Amino acid sequence: MKEHDMEITLTTTKKEKPKSDQLEFGKVFTDHMFIMDYTEGSGWHDPRIVPYQSITLEPSAMIFHYGQSVFEGMKAYYTDDKDMVLFRPEKNFQRLNKSNDRLCIPEVDIDFALAALKKLIVIDKEWIPDAEGTSLYIRPFIISTEPYLGVSPSSRYKFIIIMSPVGSYYKEGIHPVKIAVEKEFVRAVVGGTGTAKTGGNYASSLKAQKVSEENGYSQVLWLDGVEKKYIEEVGSMNVFFKIDGEVVTPALNGSILDGVTRSSIIEMLEHWNIPVSQRKISMEEVYQAHQEGKLEEAFGTGTAAVISPIGEFFWNDEKLILNEGKTGELSTKLYNTITRIQTGKEEDQLGWITHVEEKVTQE
Amino acid sequence: MKEHDMEITLTTTKKEKPKSDQLEFGKVFTDHMFIMDYTEGSGWHDPRIVPYQSITLEPSAMIFHYGQSVFEGMKAYYTDDKDMVLFRPEKNFQRLNKSNDRLCIPEVDIDFALAALKKLIVIDKEWIPDAEGTSLYIRPFIISTEPYLGVSPSSRYKFIIIMSPVGSYYKEGIHPVKIAVEKEFVRAVVGGTGTAKTGGNYASSLKAQKVSEENGYSQVLWLDGVEKKYIEEVGSMNVFFKIDGEVVTPALNGSILDGVTRSSIIEMLEHWNIPVSQRKISMEEVYQAHQEGKLEEAFGTGTAAVISPIGEFFWNDEKLILNEGKTGELSTKLYNTITRIQTGKEEDQLGWITHVEEKVTQE
Repeated sequence: MKEHDMEITLTTTKKEKPKSDQLEFGKVFTDHMFIMDYTEGSGWHDPRIVPYQSITLEPSAMIFHYGQSVFEGMKAYYTDDKDMVLFRPEKNFQRLNKSNDRLCIPEVDIDFALAALKKLIVIDKEWIPDAEGTSLYIRPFIISTEPYLGVSPSSRYKFIIIMSPVGSYYKEGIHPVKIAVEKEFVRAVVGGTGTAKTGGNYASSLKAQKVSEENGYSQVLWLDGVEKKYIEEVGSMNVFFKIDGEVVTPALNGSILDGVTRSSIIEMLEHWNIPVSQRKISMEEVYQAHQEGKLEEAFGTGTAAVISPIGEFFWNDEKLILNEGKTGELSTKLYNTITRIQTGKEEDQLGWITHVEEKVTQE
Repeated sequence: MKEHDMEITLTTTKKEKPKSDQLEFGKVFTDHMFIMDYTEGSGWHDPRIVPYQSITLEPSAMIFHYGQSVFEGMKAYYTDDKDMVLFRPEKNFQRLNKSNDRLCIPEVDIDFALAALKKLIVIDKEWIPDAEGTSLYIRPFIISTEPYLGVSPSSRYKFIIIMSPVGSYYKEGIHPVKIAVEKEFVRAVVGGTGTAKTGGNYASSLKAQKVSEENGYSQVLWLDGVEKKYIEEVGSMNVFFKIDGEVVTPALNGSILDGVTRSSIIEMLEHWNIPVSQRKISMEEVYQAHQEGKLEEAFGTGTAAVISPIGEFFWNDEKLILNEGKTGELSTKLYNTITRIQTGKEEDQLGWITHVEEKVTQE
């Protein structure tokens, strides 16, 4: 399948765009979407860009019953000289295929998906906001559509990309959040789907999130599902700790998501010659480090927030206050560096930036 | 909300019904469906029975991204004297609300849901097949429909009931299946969603199922996700073992589904004064029992198959053949008794049967 096989239908009625300072996350979508279908025997077919529109499915479509779905999240930015760029999009599509494998969904052609995404971005480029901290959030997703109630992999799927202009994650600047260590609920366990970006992981996380919010916390810190000792993720982000000068993040153990921001931060720290290790880390170790005054910073990482500094942990009826509840030096430096690379303000020394138009005109 | 608030729109073009001997599972649906909507602030509203039709949703609808969904499965039967009956439907709607709670979905009014279901069955009663072993499979389900990419409980839902005439699960009579004990993948863990009937559990089970089929096995036997020692379920069914005269099934430990057929079998065994215990049971114990010639029978239980006898376990490169690969005496007796109660051929001593029309005309 080549990009030139793609049928493009442009909208005749462009929607009004929200103002840059009124952007919310994931509520308003651009004028167009990408869609292609999979049918057993024919593979992926009929790739097309069409006006943003609703989807019609049988009530027996498998997605409504057995949750066979995967998704990705990434962002497009305008650089200061009006160049459209993506941040490591190939890593997202690679992970999409890993999620596909875990969920028994047929893999997609990464080069084709990226070319289709670039085409879509070019068509809707007026939707990329350019105010400080804004971006165009991109949501590729695959849903199972076969109208059949048998529990088995679907024989039909839809791969769709929708895009939403989003504001800065931090409306009043980057600020630390309070986190409750989760003791009852479990996000994932080795042998489950924790490494895949599939709907079920997010559905199962809602209850713990709701309880923690009722108790005045923003997110939960997930512990492992076997011993309830080792740290896995925070909310829907990966998590890092700076302890006595060393940065530690849980190793990819089979139940943690392999975050694109996570691996970018590890690479950046290595580039800076700051000690960083991926290993098992228990909540007890974090607690001890805090007691000894060695827990310098902690932060979550993900596409939406980039860096989310943690100001407090609640564990075993004790509050652990970090860095006097203020954003740490390393968190700030990482946030600034990565967002400056994403928007072309700082040199892309690690080769993370993909130009949207260069590639399109090459073909 | 009362049953008389419900708007009913009948189809003008009835579909052709499949022949009783050509029924497949969950591929053909009746002429009508029940649907009602939930909107935050207004609760559940607009209950209606409409011609079976497709559903139209925004591509940003939460069900496509974060898997917030629950479902149930039950069956309606014709008795020999043409009475329409349901098997313990209140238990399914009670479980639906337990699943709702785990997934942060608003609960439904059980009495109203049951009244709506009965109305739907009466309208589509021509679709209840009456050949031996056939039934009308009923699928209530709830999906999150808010068009928003934030990870949070949806503010909008649809509750839908669709129905499908289904043939006998055993086309050539009840026969034992071969089961591979799963060593890599995990179905659920305490603190996760294993006790809820939510899409994600089924999506995560597909890969193990696929691998086991490639190796010549029908289903997998799921072990616990913590120690990988204790037996949880088989495929998407609960599981029972008869060991030295005693029937054993895994206790409801927080990761096992509280099956309606499971609890019916326990009640029936108690009614028969056959020793039955709900407790932890390890694969090692099952293996030892087999070695000592005490593993008399094993079977899965669920709405679709009722009883699914197990003829072989594959564990640690060894095949454990049960009862010479034949259906055991107890499995047969349970299957016959329960299906005979369901179809009115045997007295309903335990109060499991709900009459569809009696109740409707009472109101």
